This record gives sequence, C-alpha cells and structure tokens, in this order.
Amino acid sequence: MKPPIGRDTRLCMSLAARPGNFGSRFHNRLYERLGLDYVYKAFTTDDLGGAVRGIRALGIRGCAVSMPFKEAVIPLLDALAGSAAAINSVNTIVNDGGRLTGYNTDYSAVRDLLDQAAVDPALPFALRGSGGMAKAVAAALRDRGHRAGTIVARNADAGAALADEYGFAWQAEVTDDAALLINATPIGMTGGDQDALAFPMSLIERCAVAFEVVALPPETPFLRAARAARKVTVAGADVAVLQALEQFVLYTGVRPGADDVAHAAAFARGEID
Amino acid sequence: MKPPIGRDTRLCMSLAARPGNFGSRFHNRLYERLGLDYVYKAFTTDDLGGAVRGIRALGIRGCAVSMPFKEAVIPLLDALAGSAAAINSVNTIVNDGGRLTGYNTDYSAVRDLLDQAAVDPALPFALRGSGGMAKAVAAALRDRGHRAGTIVARNADAGAALADEYGFAWQAEVTDDAALLINATPIGMTGGDQDALAFPMSLIERCAVAFEVVALPPETPFLRAARAARKVTVAGADVAVLQALEQFVLYTGVRPGADDVAHAAAFARGEID
Repeated sequence: MKPPIGRDTRLCMSLAARPGNFGSRFHNRLYERLGLDYVYKAFTTDDLGGAVRGIRALGIRGCAVSMPFKEAVIPLLDALAGSAAAINSVNTIVNDGGRLTGYNTDYSAVRDLLDQAAVDPALPFALRGSGGMAKAVAAALRDRGHRAGTIVARNADAGAALADEYGFAWQAEVTDDAALLINATPIGMTGGDQDALAFPMSLIERCAVAFEVVALPPETPFLRAARAARKVTVAGADVAVLQALEQFVLYTGVRPGADDVAHAAAFARGEID
Repeated sequence: MKPPIGRDTRLCMSLAARPGNFGSRFHNRLYERLGLDYVYKAFTTDDLGGAVRGIRALGIRGCAVSMPFKEAVIPLLDALAGSAAAINSVNTIVNDGGRLTGYNTDYSAVRDLLDQAAVDPALPFALRGSGGMAKAVAAALRDRGHRAGTIVARNADAGAALADEYGFAWQAEVTDDAALLINATPIGMTGGDQDALAFPMSLIERCAVAFEVVALPPETPFLRAARAARKVTVAGADVAVLQALEQFVLYTGVRPGADDVAHAAAFARGEID
C-alpha cells in the first residue's frame, strides 16, 4: 500500500517536447504495487536550463529526457555515466543530493536485449536509421563486439557520420543480405508510415534475427513478418519497457519482479486498467 | 474518479523550510473526490530562485509559500494580488501561463472568518504576536475597519513596528480587557508551549470573541477556555482549512462543497483515513 503523497514523497519526472503517458503510467503503477513513496509526472518545457535548475532546487529525484533535449542537457549536468558517455546522449538524469548524473537507458536496454537474445556479434548486421535511437543501437553493437555491419540511412550526412563514428559501413538503401536486421527509424510507427516494412520481405526471410525499435504499435509490419517467418525477434515494446525499468531501478534502488513489470507495462500501454 | 497521473496532470506544490503534510493531504484528497487531474506535493529548497524558475519552466500551476520564503519570494514574481500587497507577504503563487502572481490566503482567510463570525469592528481588540501571521491579522483588522486595538508583543521592535504600520497601539504585556482576543503566537501549539494560555483566564472570561490562530492541536488551552466560557470562537484549524481552500480555488477554479472540504480537512489532520 503506497502512502499518501506528502513531504517525504519523492518526485520523478520526464521532459519532452511532446510528452507521452507511458512513463507516468509505468512508474506510478509500479510505485503503487510496490508501496513506494514516489510519484511520477511528465512535463514539457521551453526553458531547459530553468527546468534543470528546478530539478536541483526542488530535489526532484530523477528525470527522463526525450527529444529534443538529449544532447542539450549534457552541459547542465555534473557527470555522465558510461551509458551516456558512449553516445553523448542522455535520456535519464539521476539527482543524488544535488549532483546530477546523466545515463542512457536506451543504450543499456538495447545492449541487454541483444545479450538476452544471445545474438552472436559475428553476425553481419544492417541497422536502418541515423537518429538518436540508431546512435544508441550502433554504440551497443560496437560495445558488444559487432564489427561487420552497415548503417542504412537515406540521409547521407547523418548516416555516413554515424557509420564513421562507430567504425561501420554506410549505404543509402538496403541491398545486401544481413543476418541481423535492426530498424531504428519510425517506419511502421503508429501515426507515421505505419503500413510500411522497414526491410524488404526477401531480406527478412533470409535473416536470423529481427530487432525492432518502434514500440507503438507493439507489432509493426517488420516484426509481424519476422515472427511469421519464425525468426528470433526483439520488439520495440521490450526496449521501451526495459529502458523504463532501468530508470525505475536508478531512481528507487528497487528492482521489481517480472510479474510487476509485465503488469505495469500492460497498464502503461493501455491494455489493462 | 481521478484519472491516472499523466502529461495533462497539473502539479501544485508547496515550499517551506520545514514542510508539513497538511497541504498535500488536503489538496490530493479533494482532487480524488472531485475527479480533478491534479497532483500536489510538498517541497523544501535551499535555492528559492531556482525553485521559482523551476515553477515557471515546468508550468507548475500553483505553489504555497511558507516560512522563511514569504517575503523573499516577492521580487521573483510578476504581480501581487491585493491580499499579498496588503501585507507585503506571499503565501500563494498562481502560475498563469508563465505569469506568476502572489496572493496571501492567510490574510483572506482571517478576514473572511471575522466576517463569518460577524465580529463588530467597533470591539476593542488585543492581538498577541508580531510575526507573519500577526501581520496578516493586523492587516485584516485594519481593512475591516477595526480602529481600537492593541498589538501585544514582548519583542518591542517588531511589536511597535507592526502597531505603527497598521495604526494600532502596542504594549509588551496583556493588561487591559479587550472584547476581541486574538492569539497569533505559537503559545498553545503542539511541540512548543502547548500547555500555556495565550491570554489570562480573567480576560478570556470577560471577552466577547476569542480568535485562535494556532491550528495544531485543533483545541488549544486558549480555545478550550473560551469555549468553556461560551464565547464566540474562531479556531486556528478553521484558518488553516480556509486558507488552503482558497489556494485550492485559485489553482483549480473549482470551489468544493462543504462536505468535501470537511472530509479533506479531517483527512489532512489525520482524523480519518
């Protein structure tokens, strides 16, 4: 039983240009189930410096950071953990008595999910995308020892720069087979290009592992095709939940059980009340 | 039914050197009962400027201000309402799209309670105290047309200054009879001088109206003696509830019914679950 909100309740929050509800629902539901004296609230801001000063001044325990603040927030912090330093991008701030440390739980979650799926670093990969999430994936691949891979991105500047930074090849279009296919673009996302396949069906049929970063809908065309072809798959919904769970652990020091996580994730996705 | 906390939920808060739980419990319980998408949390800070910048940057809807910030916060705001300007002291900030206005609901509550009790401004009064609450009471008395009165305060500097500012007399000790007795000191407060009487029994027996500002315990020795002597009384618990209710109305634009207020106040005092 969670105590009523009061002076000892710790606030965690998020900052995003367009805040969602996943984080608020996921964290608050876990607080309730675990009886933790915390509350979570999503915010937006047009004054990032003021928001971070407020985090310090009010002793706000933690803050999820989304677009477009993930790099801009770095000079406002006191330290970067390895996960954030690896990609120079912060999606999580932890406030320890006024000292703010930046983390990147997207990076950690991608890396952990590749480990959990026992993906062989020797498999040649094709990573589609050149944005912030593609960067987190590229860094996780590099740090797991993946060497043979291609960044696939139509944006030549961003794609080539990303490939160069992490020691991979770049090409504008998907052409070659790859054993590990990873979509880090919005292709297949609700409200966007949601009926499109991130990779050609012929490549999906010949791959070994399909990794989808898009979390909404829980099953994109790419993921559906890979599942139908009985490939090893990693879902964007799993990335979303695992990165939020790592934030939860950083903020509270408590690691919830799998049942509680599954329940909170289903609640956060609106699947249950 | 209150919706789950999410991106549209509005945060209200308090700032105090030593935060209490009354506000959090009172406001959150009313949000629940009225189904309002708000959440309330008490904070402390050692960086008032940073806290107020955070209120602006995060769009925090309202903030209760307690000791020692009531005067220091004034230069950080955009405007003062009449209630705060009357005593140059702010206990409430309302954030309208980034424009911060200071109010003083202690002043408003005292004034309203004197009106509700139909206290005749012609009654000579003795107001004990020279702190922030005494100032709110003195201003309310002056603005209701009370002219014949004495500020009773052992602190000669503060007492004489307060009396001078509002056009009343000052004396160090209670000596004369007064028809309206008002205690605005911590005498009788839980954890302090809690068994002491704020005024001599002989004066209480001869007065017409006894006004207690101390809210904890709900019945101080002064209030108990006045009730036993069948005087008209105003209780500190009523001041606390009414000032919090006025904050609630300022923040939400909703005026709860008497039953909801009584329930939330009893919950805030810990009398009910």
